[in-house]
Amino acid sequence: MVKAAVIGATGYAGSELVRILSSHKDVELAYLASHSYQGKKFSDVYPAFYSKVDLPLMEDDIEKAADVSDVIFLSLPHGIASRMVTADILKEKVVIDLGADFRLKSIDEYKKWYGCEHYGQSLLPEAVYGLPEIHRKEIRGSHLIANPGCYTTCSILTLYPLVKHHLIKKESIIIDAKSGVSGAGRSEKTANLFCEVNESIKAYGVTTHRHTPEIEQELSLAAGEDVRLTFTPHLVPMQRGILSTCYASLADGVSALDVDDAYRDCYDGEPFVRLTPYIPETRYVRTTNFCDIAYKIDERTGRVIALGAIDNLVKGAAGQAVENMNIAFSLNETEALEAKGGI
Amino acid sequence: MVKAAVIGATGYAGSELVRILSSHKDVELAYLASHSYQGKKFSDVYPAFYSKVDLPLMEDDIEKAADVSDVIFLSLPHGIASRMVTADILKEKVVIDLGADFRLKSIDEYKKWYGCEHYGQSLLPEAVYGLPEIHRKEIRGSHLIANPGCYTTCSILTLYPLVKHHLIKKESIIIDAKSGVSGAGRSEKTANLFCEVNESIKAYGVTTHRHTPEIEQELSLAAGEDVRLTFTPHLVPMQRGILSTCYASLADGVSALDVDDAYRDCYDGEPFVRLTPYIPETRYVRTTNFCDIAYKIDERTGRVIALGAIDNLVKGAAGQAVENMNIAFSLNETEALEAKGGI
Amino acid sequence: MVKAAVIGATGYAGSELVRILSSHKDVELAYLASHSYQGKKFSDVYPAFYSKVDLPLMEDDIEKAADVSDVIFLSLPHGIASRMVTADILKEKVVIDLGADFRLKSIDEYKKWYGCEHYGQSLLPEAVYGLPEIHRKEIRGSHLIANPGCYTTCSILTLYPLVKHHLIKKESIIIDAKSGVSGAGRSEKTANLFCEVNESIKAYGVTTHRHTPEIEQELSLAAGEDVRLTFTPHLVPMQRGILSTCYASLADGVSALDVDDAYRDCYDGEPFVRLTPYIPETRYVRTTNFCDIAYKIDERTGRVIALGAIDNLVKGAAGQAVENMNIAFSLNETEALEAKGGI
Amino acid sequence: MVKAAVIGATGYAGSELVRILSSHKDVELAYLASHSYQGKKFSDVYPAFYSKVDLPLMEDDIEKAADVSDVIFLSLPHGIASRMVTADILKEKVVIDLGADFRLKSIDEYKKWYGCEHYGQSLLPEAVYGLPEIHRKEIRGSHLIANPGCYTTCSILTLYPLVKHHLIKKESIIIDAKSGVSGAGRSEKTANLFCEVNESIKAYGVTTHRHTPEIEQELSLAAGEDVRLTFTPHLVPMQRGILSTCYASLADGVSALDVDDAYRDCYDGEPFVRLTPYIPETRYVRTTNFCDIAYKIDERTGRVIALGAIDNLVKGAAGQAVENMNIAFSLNETEALEAKGGI
Repeated sequence: MVKAAVIGATGYAGSELVRILSSHKDVELAYLASHSYQGKKFSDVYPAFYSKVDLPLMEDDIEKAADVSDVIFLSLPHGIASRMVTADILKEKVVIDLGADFRLKSIDEYKKWYGCEHYGQSLLPEAVYGLPEIHRKEIRGSHLIANPGCYTTCSILTLYPLVKHHLIKKESIIIDAKSGVSGAGRSEKTANLFCEVNESIKAYGVTTHRHTPEIEQELSLAAGEDVRLTFTPHLVPMQRGILSTCYASLADGVSALDVDDAYRDCYDGEPFVRLTPYIPETRYVRTTNFCDIAYKIDERTGRVIALGAIDNLVKGAAGQAVENMNIAFSLNETEALEAKGGI
Repeated sequence: MVKAAVIGATGYAGSELVRILSSHKDVELAYLASHSYQGKKFSDVYPAFYSKVDLPLMEDDIEKAADVSDVIFLSLPHGIASRMVTADILKEKVVIDLGADFRLKSIDEYKKWYGCEHYGQSLLPEAVYGLPEIHRKEIRGSHLIANPGCYTTCSILTLYPLVKHHLIKKESIIIDAKSGVSGAGRSEKTANLFCEVNESIKAYGVTTHRHTPEIEQELSLAAGEDVRLTFTPHLVPMQRGILSTCYASLADGVSALDVDDAYRDCYDGEPFVRLTPYIPETRYVRTTNFCDIAYKIDERTGRVIALGAIDNLVKGAAGQAVENMNIAFSLNETEALEAKGGI
Repeated sequence: MVKAAVIGATGYAGSELVRILSSHKDVELAYLASHSYQGKKFSDVYPAFYSKVDLPLMEDDIEKAADVSDVIFLSLPHGIASRMVTADILKEKVVIDLGADFRLKSIDEYKKWYGCEHYGQSLLPEAVYGLPEIHRKEIRGSHLIANPGCYTTCSILTLYPLVKHHLIKKESIIIDAKSGVSGAGRSEKTANLFCEVNESIKAYGVTTHRHTPEIEQELSLAAGEDVRLTFTPHLVPMQRGILSTCYASLADGVSALDVDDAYRDCYDGEPFVRLTPYIPETRYVRTTNFCDIAYKIDERTGRVIALGAIDNLVKGAAGQAVENMNIAFSLNETEALEAKGGI
Repeated sequence: MVKAAVIGATGYAGSELVRILSSHKDVELAYLASHSYQGKKFSDVYPAFYSKVDLPLMEDDIEKAADVSDVIFLSLPHGIASRMVTADILKEKVVIDLGADFRLKSIDEYKKWYGCEHYGQSLLPEAVYGLPEIHRKEIRGSHLIANPGCYTTCSILTLYPLVKHHLIKKESIIIDAKSGVSGAGRSEKTANLFCEVNESIKAYGVTTHRHTPEIEQELSLAAGEDVRLTFTPHLVPMQRGILSTCYASLADGVSALDVDDAYRDCYDGEPFVRLTPYIPETRYVRTTNFCDIAYKIDERTGRVIALGAIDNLVKGAAGQAVENMNIAFSLNETEALEAKGGI
């Protein structure tokens, strides 16, 4: 049995981790920590788990977590994980960070987009970007896995085959993404109240959203050259789900068949990517670890429109974190993530 | 022109008041106050009103409001209005309080249900309970109008004819009420976040909700004897609307015709009560000042089931407050409240 | 492996059955039938299951289903199952009917409430009412299991201990129930369109809903005498979930402890009933087979208010049907129904 | 008083017309027609209007409507209006068509995108495209007004200043639009059921949506040359509202100031366009005739991102139709459309 700790267990991503891990046959929940609810039971904060996950919520102390665990999941606001993780912990334990601190390879980019110092710079070289479809091999031996962001997981997976196979003009990429409200977290902000969110849609973080450099980093890596793109997130009155509608101009001479081949080349055999004959809807992947992808070519304008859908809390956060753990610990990659379809 | 002040203008009821008053042909908005947003413009907090209601948000000081206004609407948490209002202000101005402080005639009941002292005890005798269908005459000359609660408006109007005409066994009344989330106000509580409220229904305040004594007070008055009842509110994932499903056992010998006559006797000619041939749905009255009411007799059990629907922010708060102002200032009672149907 | 057929696989309850059965380790999906979509694949109608449940949709012919199956689930409008099932099929196979045809013991009641003839009268004596918490023993050997209705499951479980232990006045029961929209089925009715349902709440079937006699039948059985009650269902703008708010007057001399004892007596050890210290919310049981129950005594009126919550498609339909199958086939009762909490 | 007929009065756009017209001080509702509900009263189909708009629903016969009306609003599926309208009717009456039949100037484009013949070809030259911000003068004298589509109104208004002032590369335009469900109409389709739409987002009509040529027509007119663009609509789980997120590459040398000037030049003084300092949200314009617009320049990519929001049933349909009527009949352009902000 793998002993697991979750620090930040009462946020939306953290509680989703608890849900998934509590049904994982090879895992034992060893330590749950919560800054806001320390001293309560998990089921006091999430009564849905009454009588099923009644574990106490402990101090958010990574040392104490490490004492009793093999793997430590961190689900914290940016800037905190990088202060918590130490080289000593990484020697013996696996840390999977659901936050942003270890995702960007460039400290400068981190400072520019997050507007703060980075406190774990020395550990950054050890960090692997935990997107299994692209980095599965590195994840296998890693002790520090930077779990990708929700928008980024969806957007990168949707565009990756087009970029990697050089089928699109790299300066033409526009990502128009839509997310459910759980992506905004569980903090008490007026903007997240039911009456402020329901029956409305809005864009936010226009030109400034922090997932932009993360998408650019991975697509640049795939392209073998710098990719700069426009990314616009929107808030949709639903709880879960991300849809990325991605636009790009096809490179000269690229055919529909080339596009098909690229997607199949990248995703055939992948357990959690489904290339679908229908246009994805977020409900099709709700509560699952799937990323559904489809694309259409607009002959009139020479563009390809690729659409990807995930559950932001599963493939966009907790599910992918468990997938990464499964890989890192040589468990069955799909263990605890086997749902047949969205619900 | 009646000059109007709104203290507590940025809560949900307060902003609804601003909406209605800003379209009232006989009213000029003279003073908007907000504890949390003082110094901003109203449209900074409610961008829906950009370029239309750009008034500054002032200090929540009733004296300053009174200096420039004829009517002062108070939309504040309980316990505050009773400290603000003074006998001097009431001499010259009309105060319409949307909070609970002046609704209960009994100080003991107030202390028991609200768990705090009452600071305006000396003014209480002047207060009129502002439910026009029952107290229109007293409202006309009043300078202190206690605007009824949302659940109470709906529940009292739905049961009033049955109680007044002694058609039901008074100890048999059960009110099962359902409200949209705006009734919980605009405060930053985890419980009101979109992801906590959406896709779920719950009861709350079971046996302890503060609207209970208010309903009992008015129905006791109508019955001419003490009425004690069970009231259970529920939270529904929608923004606006209250539905009160009211149950009572018919008194011996009461017929369906008696019930019809009672409702018609009470509400024929009332501009905002519609006795409908269909079972009310809250959407039928959304954004209007209507209270739609229907009832059915359950021959199998000898019960009458009466259902009422209102918009909690309009007939349940701001709309009724404006109706009370219209009456108090001898304006057309329906002015600014003429919507033909729910939206 | 138990071979399972689902007739009516593309309705909401039917597709939920497919979901649960497709993850059941002791079950093989042998036959899916759909009246409307025969010839398509299941995943054509429910793309959420793309590449996971691609089975063809066959003719809704119970003989053909029986040829290849051990258990046949029927998820059909009332009046159809009773014509399909035959004594021959019941000799060798187990039929679990999610519809209403075999629930009521009294043909007269069936005719009165459903307004149609009953075509399976001769089989009715064989039918067991499939509520495991009450009829587990009979279910074990049965070949014809009448799976309870959604409102009825929730309402009966919530009231059963009070009635069985004679703690309430039996003529005082009122059930005010609230359901998500999936309870209305997947038929193309204007009333179920998003824009007709969203942002509103309504009562329907007031005094006439067909789940009334079913609740009365089971509670009468528990009481040992006839129980007649008032049941009012409401439609809530959410997809899944039922909340039953049940009211009754306590019998003379009954204490809070008596009530506690009754509930514990009935439900201690039950895998799917949770007596909770909090007031149930439907989200706590969403997608699970739990029925969460709590109660409060209103000293002021001498009433008990008991609240129960289920997922109408799981414990209220497909989950309970699988639970019944598990019992009938001597499998682990909780197999495929082990979710730790609502999602 | 202008006497008004609405043919197609029970669809979502038609009923919104009835709502607005019933509060219009210069209009008398003279004839309401409904194909599906002929013989009923309007308030039977829309009980929200009980006792307020109880007019009978007549045959959908334009001649009969013309006999008693000055203006005839047609709110019908495409292909029907063009068969109904005649030159004779246009001689004496004003027809405002909310459908698509008279919007496209090119019969070929109509055939290509709508896949059917056009039956009113001879009247097409008379038709004016009813977008007041661009065609106010032509609307004034017109007898046949083609009311723009919902997506098109929002998208054209958002992009018009950029195109007209040649500030963007015309081949770079991408419109990613999001709509509430009322845009799909009131027809009984499985896809529009609450449970199919709620808690999900999807794209549809990718590369093929019929509003594409309409947007291109008007922007080409503004540009003085052919504009070809990509338009992708999405369905959002809300009732009303459209948000158009529009992307384009700035032409060489264009500054932020140039963009500001262009928007002000086009919209200063316009009663229903608000250039807002905040990013638009659809709730800010809900139930109003406003189009809120903002834009941001992405220095990193040289793009401008312009966002527009409307209520699809008001500025996107019925409200704009009334605005067109107000102009055509020389009434106050804002009459019956004066709401101060979204609700």
